[in-house]
Amino acid sequence: MGKAHSNALSRLPMFFPDAPEVELDVLIGRDESALANAAERFGFSRTATNWQDVVDEVDVFYNLGPNALHVEPSIEALDAGVSVFCEKPLAHTLEGAEQMRDAAKRSSGTAGVTFNYRFIPAVQYAKELIESGDLGEIHHVRGRYLQDWLVDPKAPWSWRLNDEVAGSGALGDLGSHTFDLMHFLVGERVGDIERVSGNLRTFVPERPTPNRSKMKPVTVDDAFTAQAEFESGATATVEASRYATGHKNDLSVEINGSEGSLRFSLERLNELEFCGADDRGYQTILVTEESDPYVDHWWPAGHVLGWEHTFVHANQEFLTAVEQGEEHAPSFDDGYRVQELLDAVARSDERSEWIDVK
Amino acid sequence: MGKAHSNALSRLPMFFPDAPEVELDVLIGRDESALANAAERFGFSRTATNWQDVVDEVDVFYNLGPNALHVEPSIEALDAGVSVFCEKPLAHTLEGAEQMRDAAKRSSGTAGVTFNYRFIPAVQYAKELIESGDLGEIHHVRGRYLQDWLVDPKAPWSWRLNDEVAGSGALGDLGSHTFDLMHFLVGERVGDIERVSGNLRTFVPERPTPNRSKMKPVTVDDAFTAQAEFESGATATVEASRYATGHKNDLSVEINGSEGSLRFSLERLNELEFCGADDRGYQTILVTEESDPYVDHWWPAGHVLGWEHTFVHANQEFLTAVEQGEEHAPSFDDGYRVQELLDAVARSDERSEWIDVK
Amino acid sequence: MGKAHSNALSRLPMFFPDAPEVELDVLIGRDESALANAAERFGFSRTATNWQDVVDEVDVFYNLGPNALHVEPSIEALDAGVSVFCEKPLAHTLEGAEQMRDAAKRSSGTAGVTFNYRFIPAVQYAKELIESGDLGEIHHVRGRYLQDWLVDPKAPWSWRLNDEVAGSGALGDLGSHTFDLMHFLVGERVGDIERVSGNLRTFVPERPTPNRSKMKPVTVDDAFTAQAEFESGATATVEASRYATGHKNDLSVEINGSEGSLRFSLERLNELEFCGADDRGYQTILVTEESDPYVDHWWPAGHVLGWEHTFVHANQEFLTAVEQGEEHAPSFDDGYRVQELLDAVARSDERSEWIDVK
Amino acid sequence: MGKAHSNALSRLPMFFPDAPEVELDVLIGRDESALANAAERFGFSRTATNWQDVVDEVDVFYNLGPNALHVEPSIEALDAGVSVFCEKPLAHTLEGAEQMRDAAKRSSGTAGVTFNYRFIPAVQYAKELIESGDLGEIHHVRGRYLQDWLVDPKAPWSWRLNDEVAGSGALGDLGSHTFDLMHFLVGERVGDIERVSGNLRTFVPERPTPNRSKMKPVTVDDAFTAQAEFESGATATVEASRYATGHKNDLSVEINGSEGSLRFSLERLNELEFCGADDRGYQTILVTEESDPYVDHWWPAGHVLGWEHTFVHANQEFLTAVEQGEEHAPSFDDGYRVQELLDAVARSDERSEWIDVK
Repeated sequence: MGKAHSNALSRLPMFFPDAPEVELDVLIGRDESALANAAERFGFSRTATNWQDVVDEVDVFYNLGPNALHVEPSIEALDAGVSVFCEKPLAHTLEGAEQMRDAAKRSSGTAGVTFNYRFIPAVQYAKELIESGDLGEIHHVRGRYLQDWLVDPKAPWSWRLNDEVAGSGALGDLGSHTFDLMHFLVGERVGDIERVSGNLRTFVPERPTPNRSKMKPVTVDDAFTAQAEFESGATATVEASRYATGHKNDLSVEINGSEGSLRFSLERLNELEFCGADDRGYQTILVTEESDPYVDHWWPAGHVLGWEHTFVHANQEFLTAVEQGEEHAPSFDDGYRVQELLDAVARSDERSEWIDVK
Repeated sequence: MGKAHSNALSRLPMFFPDAPEVELDVLIGRDESALANAAERFGFSRTATNWQDVVDEVDVFYNLGPNALHVEPSIEALDAGVSVFCEKPLAHTLEGAEQMRDAAKRSSGTAGVTFNYRFIPAVQYAKELIESGDLGEIHHVRGRYLQDWLVDPKAPWSWRLNDEVAGSGALGDLGSHTFDLMHFLVGERVGDIERVSGNLRTFVPERPTPNRSKMKPVTVDDAFTAQAEFESGATATVEASRYATGHKNDLSVEINGSEGSLRFSLERLNELEFCGADDRGYQTILVTEESDPYVDHWWPAGHVLGWEHTFVHANQEFLTAVEQGEEHAPSFDDGYRVQELLDAVARSDERSEWIDVK
Repeated sequence: MGKAHSNALSRLPMFFPDAPEVELDVLIGRDESALANAAERFGFSRTATNWQDVVDEVDVFYNLGPNALHVEPSIEALDAGVSVFCEKPLAHTLEGAEQMRDAAKRSSGTAGVTFNYRFIPAVQYAKELIESGDLGEIHHVRGRYLQDWLVDPKAPWSWRLNDEVAGSGALGDLGSHTFDLMHFLVGERVGDIERVSGNLRTFVPERPTPNRSKMKPVTVDDAFTAQAEFESGATATVEASRYATGHKNDLSVEINGSEGSLRFSLERLNELEFCGADDRGYQTILVTEESDPYVDHWWPAGHVLGWEHTFVHANQEFLTAVEQGEEHAPSFDDGYRVQELLDAVARSDERSEWIDVK
Repeated sequence: MGKAHSNALSRLPMFFPDAPEVELDVLIGRDESALANAAERFGFSRTATNWQDVVDEVDVFYNLGPNALHVEPSIEALDAGVSVFCEKPLAHTLEGAEQMRDAAKRSSGTAGVTFNYRFIPAVQYAKELIESGDLGEIHHVRGRYLQDWLVDPKAPWSWRLNDEVAGSGALGDLGSHTFDLMHFLVGERVGDIERVSGNLRTFVPERPTPNRSKMKPVTVDDAFTAQAEFESGATATVEASRYATGHKNDLSVEINGSEGSLRFSLERLNELEFCGADDRGYQTILVTEESDPYVDHWWPAGHVLGWEHTFVHANQEFLTAVEQGEEHAPSFDDGYRVQELLDAVARSDERSEWIDVK
């Protein structure tokens, strides 16, 4: 994630000349030599192994560490008036997310969550279509995020499989993106999700450590399924897995409305499939026209963008908000609301019943 | 449905010369003049307006009426030793389905449910791949059946929207196919569905009668979502809707296993998408080789079949079972088990909790 | 082909009740026992091994034999006032096609060529779009027909590989369909093809006889490529091959106009891809609505048709023309014009220069 | 193009740390104020309006000007021992290309053409498959490059439509990429193209100047079609257009061999469609694994790249060759050979006959 954000920042001057100028001050990490190395490669002035020492010395703090390290440093930074850009999910617990949301409210700094997929041109264009009424009344939403990197039972254990550090597994890591994207796209039309029913599953209960010396327990979910209901009565299915053979990084959303439907998949992120009121089937649209969101900053029509561009757009928006002292969307409140959903799915799984959100 | 089966029967001699010879004896219906007309067109010898008068005078009784008329005539036929081929869902209530299952057990006749989509070459081929282990251990199943014929709130009311006649809406009509197809494909590997969580939704509560003279209430679901869990621990999402703009008759199944994945859609019924252990992505396979199930009866490789061929195959299998005095799959027991799932989804919706099946 | 047409005729009464009634009189062939067998299966009253004996005893003569047997029997039938439905390509030589065209002109019977792909609902719908101006001025056409059944050098020799019987290889067999489909779709807008440049290729010069006893020479093309130019100045590429690994029966056409574009593939014959003036990409249209050509005769929306339905439509149109004493399109003149193109492509290949057609 | 290369150079340190360090010295252009502006944005030390003044003062000269300005400056640079990276097509005339090729041969500098599409991971992977024999003997190649930016007759005139500056239209601009990509992929297996037949077309003979003050003649082709034959006997169709409605930047290649087939399209540049000997259809492969060419330099599996990454790869390869004093592929000889094909297609169009290449 550090690489993705560093890269994004380095590209702003050429493609978004109006974005604030950025100086990379201090890179925080654990291992001093790796840190020095990375600092040089990415262009930081200095390094620190203790975040407390430096978190109030900067204008903006990027919190890209494991989920369990989101809460305390973010709150301390915000309380010092430092703006914070935090990786998703907002926290490893609902309580932590709540504290972060409250810190953001009382802070003079700007707080943002890196739900970078909001900033894909095709996603922004989809949102425009939905909000302008081209889909009519929304009936159904399907969100799912499919990966396959854990399908091999011998794939090694990592911190992402430890609930104390990660909070949850596919649910937090992939479900957070999925719920945020769904809400971002249809929230204006159908309101919030009011209740959910979830099912979590861990297929492989322990995995070898990276050096293969011993087995460590997997204490998070490998996959989840969920149903959801929006305020308007629209229904949804939601799902994520790290065991979906044949899918690498496949976040997809489908939406059916009374006037039209649309589909998006992250593996073809330059495309949007849209079936409007005058159409007889889904159009496959290459969302790369100069008139499409963000595209005029890059290349001529038909010249596709990649995954990393989502970070450039997200950083540009966040830093502009910081510079102007404004709120950024997705905010910590947005992050908190996603966390509520993750928490509700997990509780639903425990209780085998639908859970009202809020 | 009468047209689909009549057509299927008429094609057996040319394409399945080993199938039993069929004589169309009596066509049952309500309206005498329409009945006489249809009998002539389809080639029946006589007609009847009262099923009780004739149901024991034939070797085989095709029960193609509305769902609420499945129970009594089927049981009476079976008890008279007449074989019965019944449209899906098996009944409009779980109790009715149970009685039908029991009648089938005690009858000397053969009982079959017309889950015709089992007999698509691509579906049969998918089943072969799954059962031969090409997908490995099954982790996820996604079944959904999307149509859009009710998305217009002015579309007229019909018996399918009356729970007393239909039993349920999208759940029974489309969900029955979906659950059967899922079970048919993966049942041998993952066992039965052990529990479900469901959500039913009616978007338009009343609709005009066909002649537009008045409004009648819609007393069935327009759409449902569900989650399911198999004996093996594999998870599933299931969904059907008559409000999915852009989808006409789109029954699709996706299955992810530890070694491979596959996808099928009824709108492209000659194709199967398969990603095996040696593949780097889904192959799009045209399942029209002479070596593919049923294909050698038809045309050379690459010459695609249509929807109606599923009925030819289903009828050929059923009539052969009748002739040989054997059981047919899908049996009334299969139909009953699907009904159990439909019933469990509906009860889950009422209670907002997971329901154990059986 | 006999099976395809017999099947088509047998389905007319149920689905096209207004089509003329047909009586299968005499089946012509070489091998008496095979003939008797086939006659019974398909429902013919009698058989003949000499076409001269019977060709004037029927109302309609279906000429489905090898290409070299198209000319003489068709002409004799037409000269006897018998209507003729002839398989494609019209003849094995341009001279033969010319004589057949002339015979058709002077005959009281109706003459038709079985370019059955004209009668696919998606193709008819494409033609409507083009002729109503939805594509604007046509700039480019791409026609190609890809199969792979000869890619194995050990695949056996057959009459289709003998130029004396077949006239040509992929050119006549597949190119005839391709050129006819192109002309059918865009002819009204761009006129005839005025000149062509072609390239024929035989990859495997000899093949084993079916019983593997000896090798026989392949004297036709395995594949061809061509360029073409229409009267309007629109350009085309045309291609066919029996060596296109991965393609079974893939006749495809793409058309780009100033206002829109469309694409069709026979392997997905229920679909049309269309990009109109208000679209941002190709719509994938399932051409199965009741309002689509021929569809109201079959099944509800979304219930797909197969390859064989093209023959039902073609026979219905042809027999209706016969009954009404009218011309049928595609006529022998259409067949002759396709033959002119095949001949021009072959001559262009020999001379390595563009050939003016006509 | 300047922006694409500047961006590429700026990204090398972070992603290709072993690439030579680059100092942006002098930016050459016509308009002094625009030049100063661009130099600052892209990070050049100085500017020049006369290439002769500076072309021998640098280690590497990037020639990104209009085609007619490729010859003289490139030769002067090479003769001064300066390495040259030149945009495609190599020149606006065959004679110019020949002189450039000869200058490259005698120079101590390295000369490269920016056929950047060679450096797409999916293209490199396709080449590996072909060269390792996974497609067997190659029978057919289809190359085409479809754009639609000129389909509106009111789209303004530009230098690209002037043959004196551009040399040709779609042929040189798009056909050069297409021929190079075809040769790059299959050249090792099928040898060079031995002969071609071409057809050029200009649909709109004059267009308004950008300020709409007057009309200027279009003296280049809007589109071309061609056939080609390789040394091995493999056949090809080639095509490019700026009038292909619905296609933005769609360079595609399809290859059929005796053992397998593949397809690639630039609009989905992260994907390769491959049908191998053990496959029953085309696999859709996301070429984004760590083991895929160049991918380990970027992001984790499944995280897609964009159009601009092709320039990063191309620059990294070229600059590494410069540093090591080695030849770069594609070389000026490769560029010359493409120019021979463009020239042969144009001559074939003039003469209406096949032209032998060389």
